[in-house]
Amino acid sequence: MQKKLIAEFIGTSWLVIGGCGSAIFAAGVPDVGIGFVGVSLAFGLTVLSMAYAIGHISGCHLNPAVSFGLWAGGRFSAKELLPYIGAQVLGAIFGAGILYLIFTGKSSDIGGFAANGYGEHSPEGYSMVAGFIAEFVMTFMFLIIILGSTHSKAPKYLAGVAIGLGLTLIHLVSIPITNTSVNPARSTSQAIFVGGWAIAQLWMFWVAPILGAVCAGFVYKFISPEEE
Amino acid sequence: MQKKLIAEFIGTSWLVIGGCGSAIFAAGVPDVGIGFVGVSLAFGLTVLSMAYAIGHISGCHLNPAVSFGLWAGGRFSAKELLPYIGAQVLGAIFGAGILYLIFTGKSSDIGGFAANGYGEHSPEGYSMVAGFIAEFVMTFMFLIIILGSTHSKAPKYLAGVAIGLGLTLIHLVSIPITNTSVNPARSTSQAIFVGGWAIAQLWMFWVAPILGAVCAGFVYKFISPEEE
Amino acid sequence: MQKKLIAEFIGTSWLVIGGCGSAIFAAGVPDVGIGFVGVSLAFGLTVLSMAYAIGHISGCHLNPAVSFGLWAGGRFSAKELLPYIGAQVLGAIFGAGILYLIFTGKSSDIGGFAANGYGEHSPEGYSMVAGFIAEFVMTFMFLIIILGSTHSKAPKYLAGVAIGLGLTLIHLVSIPITNTSVNPARSTSQAIFVGGWAIAQLWMFWVAPILGAVCAGFVYKFISPEEE
Amino acid sequence: MQKKLIAEFIGTSWLVIGGCGSAIFAAGVPDVGIGFVGVSLAFGLTVLSMAYAIGHISGCHLNPAVSFGLWAGGRFSAKELLPYIGAQVLGAIFGAGILYLIFTGKSSDIGGFAANGYGEHSPEGYSMVAGFIAEFVMTFMFLIIILGSTHSKAPKYLAGVAIGLGLTLIHLVSIPITNTSVNPARSTSQAIFVGGWAIAQLWMFWVAPILGAVCAGFVYKFISPEEE
Repeated sequence: MQKKLIAEFIGTSWLVIGGCGSAIFAAGVPDVGIGFVGVSLAFGLTVLSMAYAIGHISGCHLNPAVSFGLWAGGRFSAKELLPYIGAQVLGAIFGAGILYLIFTGKSSDIGGFAANGYGEHSPEGYSMVAGFIAEFVMTFMFLIIILGSTHSKAPKYLAGVAIGLGLTLIHLVSIPITNTSVNPARSTSQAIFVGGWAIAQLWMFWVAPILGAVCAGFVYKFISPEEE
Repeated sequence: MQKKLIAEFIGTSWLVIGGCGSAIFAAGVPDVGIGFVGVSLAFGLTVLSMAYAIGHISGCHLNPAVSFGLWAGGRFSAKELLPYIGAQVLGAIFGAGILYLIFTGKSSDIGGFAANGYGEHSPEGYSMVAGFIAEFVMTFMFLIIILGSTHSKAPKYLAGVAIGLGLTLIHLVSIPITNTSVNPARSTSQAIFVGGWAIAQLWMFWVAPILGAVCAGFVYKFISPEEE
Repeated sequence: MQKKLIAEFIGTSWLVIGGCGSAIFAAGVPDVGIGFVGVSLAFGLTVLSMAYAIGHISGCHLNPAVSFGLWAGGRFSAKELLPYIGAQVLGAIFGAGILYLIFTGKSSDIGGFAANGYGEHSPEGYSMVAGFIAEFVMTFMFLIIILGSTHSKAPKYLAGVAIGLGLTLIHLVSIPITNTSVNPARSTSQAIFVGGWAIAQLWMFWVAPILGAVCAGFVYKFISPEEE
Repeated sequence: MQKKLIAEFIGTSWLVIGGCGSAIFAAGVPDVGIGFVGVSLAFGLTVLSMAYAIGHISGCHLNPAVSFGLWAGGRFSAKELLPYIGAQVLGAIFGAGILYLIFTGKSSDIGGFAANGYGEHSPEGYSMVAGFIAEFVMTFMFLIIILGSTHSKAPKYLAGVAIGLGLTLIHLVSIPITNTSVNPARSTSQAIFVGGWAIAQLWMFWVAPILGAVCAGFVYKFISPEEE
């Protein structure tokens, strides 16, 4: 269990360092910056790379919504939920701390710090309701991809590719809406450093993703074939 | 059969939410927008992610032209054609509805809404004939990729990667020509919300892709080796 | 043999339609155009998608330099060289014809038509010598990737991914130098439609790639382990 | 052993030609240039393509920090360290020489030549401490990915994809900070051609990556499951 939690800690810190880091350091560089395409790729590749690196240790959830969804889908035991979520949140905060350390080696104003938001804090001004729907739907589909591609009848060696690039896809669609969370641990870690509005809006990035994930767990159980 | 149709419904809604959604929400954001590269990636990744998530349930067609092409290639039974196409079209419309809900949380003018078009509605002004050739050729090659990579002599675990990224390639080439359909269900779902010209031009995005797909089915049967 | 040649014909036409097509139609669209990144992806994905679609039929060379390199590496028989190259060149020209048909549905001036060139016809003004070195080195490494990843000790199901994305990499580096050939069939097909300078410079895009490929064949034989 | 060293030489020269070459030739071309996204892809694809091409010959380290990290993780013998590092550095310098030859076919001023730097030579002005932390963390995580994805319990055929795209991710985050090294051989090869400041700052791109890699070796041993 200890090894699993260390793996989740490291993996989730990587998700924040890689995904949010690419947004903070590289998205807006003039002319050669990576833009939303690069940030989308980066988030997806954190999960893809960790899936093969630590998947055989902890299952590579890196995300409280994923742990909840796997529980709802009957793939994860309730008693491991809390320790996993703890390790994920702590890992994410550790990752955000690394980003803070590096970024302040250039400038003391961290700005939005890639935090998630809606309404006036949505990158392109989408309402709270639009943001909620987007986070719910995106996390719902993320779990459908995870539950489906790790099913015993799927070619499971490819699951890490499908899940990682699926997260890239989710970001390609929804960065303009909420800066894309689908991951309460990631949202929490950035909100802590930004404070104020980011903390005030944080509830949505716990409620919508977990709700979407749990619904996906039940739906997938209904459409999935017998395990082999 | 019911499970298959639900899977096609969910998968095709994801194709529209992910592919058209990335175009509507993220393509044109100034400076950091994802452009046609991002939209191309997004369309491809909807298919790649679903291939591993629901491929073992329904075969993951998500597209009436694909169902027709697989039938012509001797891989799909005629009596399943209609139910599959029904589920695909309904799923696509459901997906477009989600996009509508989210987008109107920002603005009430949906604009082109990523609908397909030719002539004055081609993104870069290509004629109807050019658009028809492009849709025919692109869908023809899409089916060659699908039929070839799922053949029993191909390394079939990789088929989802080849097919998904093949769709990305198709979009990299043809978004400027017709906004890229190769999928009548996707075209229908957007046309319904745009109305007017998009409905008037919709015929082409049924005829050209299905014709291309059926031709590919016959050609592939001719060049394919014996099944193992 | 007939099936193999049809497969090479179709595959090479796809390389031109997908790779050169993305350059002609989509690279330079203002703001949302795909640029050299998109063109690089497109070329690579033509090979990746065809590797899984027709690899089990013809081996998916799609390129006279590849056929020569495989021959030098002891993987392809001399008596098949000529028919393969014939099918590749004809397929490439057919593909360029499709592009011509579509493009003239928008404008009658085809411009550079993605032809390869050096000196004043190099996209960024690189000299003939620089272009020759680039084409030689790039094709040399392309064949090292091909010969290595299809070796019996390599995880060969992934060869199509490594080779396709290897071609993407080659384009990421060398489009500014010669518009990237590494493929005499592709170069020939575009030169025929452009005429003039493109025909006059075509010799280099036969000599340098084939020379690089043949050298790689001999080098790889020297460093490769025993076949299993 | 000789075959292994030739493979490392060729592979590391490819890392420099592909990765640094894309930065030098293609990153900054106006409008259609590949930017940091393209350079990140290019670096990752050098490793992905070589992993499948020469992985079965030498293990495809291409990087002194990787060799050190594999040694610390108990996967590589101490007595091979020096010959491997020698081959890597020579290969990198050879690759940089090829880039120099090609580039001077256009212009005699090589500029920054994609060398790594911190402080006033950081692309976006990050301090020495920020650069050190970034290089340490990035190489630490690179080795976690390498050690994890090549573990006997991981689906090892995919290791080349995870490691290559992991390097892409590392570049997406850290090009603006130090131009991304995580590889002392790559840094050395560019510094030799640039001279002056690049030589003066070179120490950091040996110390930080090797330190990060060795730490990762010890940490991974602690969390890794029993080998099968």
